[in-house]
Amino acid sequence: MNKQFSIRSRVWVFDEDIPFLGIGRIQLLENIEECGSITKGAEAMNMSYRKAWQLVENMNQMSPKPLVEKQMGGEKGGGATVTAEGKTVIKKYHLLQKKMDNYLAKITKEINF
Amino acid sequence: MNKQFSIRSRVWVFDEDIPFLGIGRIQLLENIEECGSITKGAEAMNMSYRKAWQLVENMNQMSPKPLVEKQMGGEKGGGATVTAEGKTVIKKYHLLQKKMDNYLAKITKEINF
Repeated sequence: MNKQFSIRSRVWVFDEDIPFLGIGRIQLLENIEECGSITKGAEAMNMSYRKAWQLVENMNQMSPKPLVEKQMGGEKGGGATVTAEGKTVIKKYHLLQKKMDNYLAKITKEINF
Repeated sequence: MNKQFSIRSRVWVFDEDIPFLGIGRIQLLENIEECGSITKGAEAMNMSYRKAWQLVENMNQMSPKPLVEKQMGGEKGGGATVTAEGKTVIKKYHLLQKKMDNYLAKITKEINF
């Protein structure tokens, strides 16, 4: 084949067969970290607050240590911060995806679509 | 973290930003090859005939050479076969995914979730 195709990969972390982390959840964590709030973090990616809350609950339950810490009180029910564990998980995910991207670029030259 | 997470990757082939091949389309090609028909191939994976037909048209148009060849006539409008190009594409996709899986298994030991 002489047409130019590009090949991409995407990484997921599972607990048994249940998704724990994917790029969407990582982006949510990053948005929460940046905005200091689940509501605002969700808004920034056009995700409903309800869905963001569920994902955060979900990740916190599956992780050995919580990834997001909610602060009580204040206007709009307080903010949220990403824990040290959450920051580690974000870094690890990106490192993993980057390594996979680099390797894919390498083998794409061998397996030419 | 001491919990046991598993990491998985999935590969896609794009033409510009348009998906050309993913595991679902590859499975459809394999089913068509096995069943000798788009209808039966789609049935085997609970895909509607309409969707399967669209995907086949789509892949055939994007590929430099058609991946599926339709036979005219006969009962139920004739069968379909996967071309040599289609078989090559199936093999390449699996080889790519396998190489990525092997590499992922290797780096998963380094980047421990």
